[in-house]
Amino acid sequence: MGIDLDLRNLSSCLPADLTPDQRARAQTLFLKRLSLSAHAHYGGKMQTVPKCGLWGFGWFNVWYTPGVSAVSTAIRDDNDLSLSLSNRGNLVAVVSDSTRVLGDGDCTPPGGLGVMEGKAMLMKYLGGVDATALCVDSRGKDGKNDPAKLIDFVKMVQHSFGAINLEDISQPNCFRVLDELREACDIPVWHDDAQGTACVTLAGLVNALKLAGKKLGDARIVLLGAGASNTTIARLIMADGGDPAKLCLFDTKGGLHAGRADIEADPRAYRKWELCRKTNPARYATEAEALKGADVLIALSTPGPDTVKREWIRSMAPGGIVFCCANPVPEIWPYAAKEEGAFIVATGRGDFPNQVNNSICFPGLLKGALLARSRKITDAMAIRCAHSIAEFAEARGIGADDIIAKMDETEVFAIEAADVAEQAAKDGVARSSLSRQEVYERAKADIAASRKLVDDLQRLGHVGAPPQAMLDEALAWAVAQVKS
Amino acid sequence: MGIDLDLRNLSSCLPADLTPDQRARAQTLFLKRLSLSAHAHYGGKMQTVPKCGLWGFGWFNVWYTPGVSAVSTAIRDDNDLSLSLSNRGNLVAVVSDSTRVLGDGDCTPPGGLGVMEGKAMLMKYLGGVDATALCVDSRGKDGKNDPAKLIDFVKMVQHSFGAINLEDISQPNCFRVLDELREACDIPVWHDDAQGTACVTLAGLVNALKLAGKKLGDARIVLLGAGASNTTIARLIMADGGDPAKLCLFDTKGGLHAGRADIEADPRAYRKWELCRKTNPARYATEAEALKGADVLIALSTPGPDTVKREWIRSMAPGGIVFCCANPVPEIWPYAAKEEGAFIVATGRGDFPNQVNNSICFPGLLKGALLARSRKITDAMAIRCAHSIAEFAEARGIGADDIIAKMDETEVFAIEAADVAEQAAKDGVARSSLSRQEVYERAKADIAASRKLVDDLQRLGHVGAPPQAMLDEALAWAVAQVKS
Repeated sequence: MGIDLDLRNLSSCLPADLTPDQRARAQTLFLKRLSLSAHAHYGGKMQTVPKCGLWGFGWFNVWYTPGVSAVSTAIRDDNDLSLSLSNRGNLVAVVSDSTRVLGDGDCTPPGGLGVMEGKAMLMKYLGGVDATALCVDSRGKDGKNDPAKLIDFVKMVQHSFGAINLEDISQPNCFRVLDELREACDIPVWHDDAQGTACVTLAGLVNALKLAGKKLGDARIVLLGAGASNTTIARLIMADGGDPAKLCLFDTKGGLHAGRADIEADPRAYRKWELCRKTNPARYATEAEALKGADVLIALSTPGPDTVKREWIRSMAPGGIVFCCANPVPEIWPYAAKEEGAFIVATGRGDFPNQVNNSICFPGLLKGALLARSRKITDAMAIRCAHSIAEFAEARGIGADDIIAKMDETEVFAIEAADVAEQAAKDGVARSSLSRQEVYERAKADIAASRKLVDDLQRLGHVGAPPQAMLDEALAWAVAQVKS
Repeated sequence: MGIDLDLRNLSSCLPADLTPDQRARAQTLFLKRLSLSAHAHYGGKMQTVPKCGLWGFGWFNVWYTPGVSAVSTAIRDDNDLSLSLSNRGNLVAVVSDSTRVLGDGDCTPPGGLGVMEGKAMLMKYLGGVDATALCVDSRGKDGKNDPAKLIDFVKMVQHSFGAINLEDISQPNCFRVLDELREACDIPVWHDDAQGTACVTLAGLVNALKLAGKKLGDARIVLLGAGASNTTIARLIMADGGDPAKLCLFDTKGGLHAGRADIEADPRAYRKWELCRKTNPARYATEAEALKGADVLIALSTPGPDTVKREWIRSMAPGGIVFCCANPVPEIWPYAAKEEGAFIVATGRGDFPNQVNNSICFPGLLKGALLARSRKITDAMAIRCAHSIAEFAEARGIGADDIIAKMDETEVFAIEAADVAEQAAKDGVARSSLSRQEVYERAKADIAASRKLVDDLQRLGHVGAPPQAMLDEALAWAVAQVKS
């Protein structure tokens, strides 16, 4: 039996005699092998095409010289017009220095192109947003990646885009790059690894607490890992009503608190130091202490499955909420956390319940920021987006194994866009005066048009199906690998 | 009577009582007005769409995580694979600092977006090449555009593109930017204002000389204007067999020759100084002297119509060839040059015979360079492209009023691509081993697919026609302007 083009029968195409572990490995190996063949087959994932018409060559006199001169001078006289007279207003730069490429670390400057083009694809299909992958060589003469170079690069290129999506930039550079650019640029600068993850995590947390009958302000929350994601999650939780005194973060050296001289001494760790001063007044030093009676654990640390100990979960308060979001293997297997009494478990994976996935956030959030012609993305906009996602899921019904909207619930993105744009107006960062309803309708129409376009490209053969042999070869190879 | 959507009946829609000058002005004003409305209507000109398929959400596991990891690590281990595993191999960055935007001078950083997006549109439609507009803020702390910043920017972004098209960068920065980047980058860097113009001018000159029965090596050639275009034209003419001793360039201060101490003293004018040393041994100081008995005049200087004097043309050798390519008004009207005995006259405009237009060159040339996976565009490749264009026209028949291929002769681009790729291989700068025929077929198929895609987008309503009222309003406005 061959694999279906939609890959849904993948699991049943694997030999029956594989162990569960072999099945999981074979599945991942298949996806990687197919990815390599398919990327080579299509020559990448995104292309550029006109969004306006050509009704004869005479239209080049309109779109190009001499007509376009009116556009050049109009923008010269009012730079903001570039957002409506060019595609800039719907265009995001996905900027990375490729130093921490999704799961693979430093991949050299062009190494991030596959991921960044993938991000551009998600933006178009889910959010109706155009995007360009810009993998930047920010290495200085000493061969080290220099955050100042990346900052300068984005400042130089900002006038060609409506928003900047920073991605896969290693620590600690990512903090300084985001913070300086948020100040310096007159368009939204978004660091999806940090802010996107924080937004979806907060969305899931909000609904999980509802189900557990607890309030954010009362919850004792332990965060394992103090990287870009968790430090941002902590900031958003506090901004949304979480009690700093009930928060506690851990890095590889223990609990963050006002006594951590090592963090105080490192000026690049200024974000962590802020949290040291605000949180964990009890100065918990170990996870075991901190988790005793805690309501929530948010782990974004080392892949497991033994990073989080069973006994830690067992010691949590009743109705415990566990986010174990390391990839590819969660810090503790969901079944194990449940066995130890956890009420709700979320992971980063699509093959377990409650996937916490940035893709549910950034396409809608960026669409809203773009339609608002926003100058920034404030923390209030990110928090609003989190509630937008949470409320959407609540409205269609939530449960302990279904706390958050999924990527294929396409209606959520236009709602996010509308809420985010409305918040941008409230926060005084919007240039446009579109109403919430206008943004909603525009986003909904753009997203529908995006999907219809992708469907039509396939239907008309502009994008052909991959040869069946490509799928079969990838499967045979993956199976052979795990059996050898 | 309304204007047809294809704009072909524009001329007959103008009131009969307009003078020829009013008609010309009304036509330009109409195109500018329509351009502004149409750009606002469509929100710019280019969008990004997938070039690969989505057969269900399972494919995000192939195009994005976890599958894409295989692409990231493959590129990390061999950077050249980024040209085939991402769209980089078919993607050009159209980079400008917007300091000399087509006809409008310095338009501030975003001011060039209309032109650069237009360039991207031409690349896709004519050459099957994807392109992204990058208008860069290269101003230093003193507010002045710093060529070093632009150079650094391109070096940083080069790993995301298969080629760089520099555009609309003012003098003298453009020379240093091009020369340093041609050396520093491992992908082609092309300055279309200089090299593209030189390539099409050489193509036209080659055929004009054939018709006049003269040889390039024997021709006495006077170049009026010593900007980026004409200095590059002079370089290519010499490289293609022109005799330096028979060449003479003029800038605003007179003839270029070895006695020009002002040019020698300015290190930024190094390209001009090279020409001072090589050409014009007679040290002609005035155009009137130099043009006496000359075979060719190539004017790329101040808009006319009186920049070139009638008596200069009258004094040229029989069979005189005159390129008067200033925009929007040629240095001398073609009819006037003909009255004074010119045999062939070419301009930059589409409404006179013999339009010398970059658009006939860069889409095919860049397609060829990309398919060859070229590291550079050598002067030999540009010269080869000029001959490709000239020979294409010669094969279908040339005449004094038809010396060069036109933009709607779509077959020429695939031929250029094949010739340019072959030359890249000869010059040792190609990474790919495709044969000339393979490049030709690939380019031809890609260009056909591009056009079919644009047609289908319109046919299926993804791109709607503009409202008739938009065309009518633009016309009424333009007519009112010239009558007032």
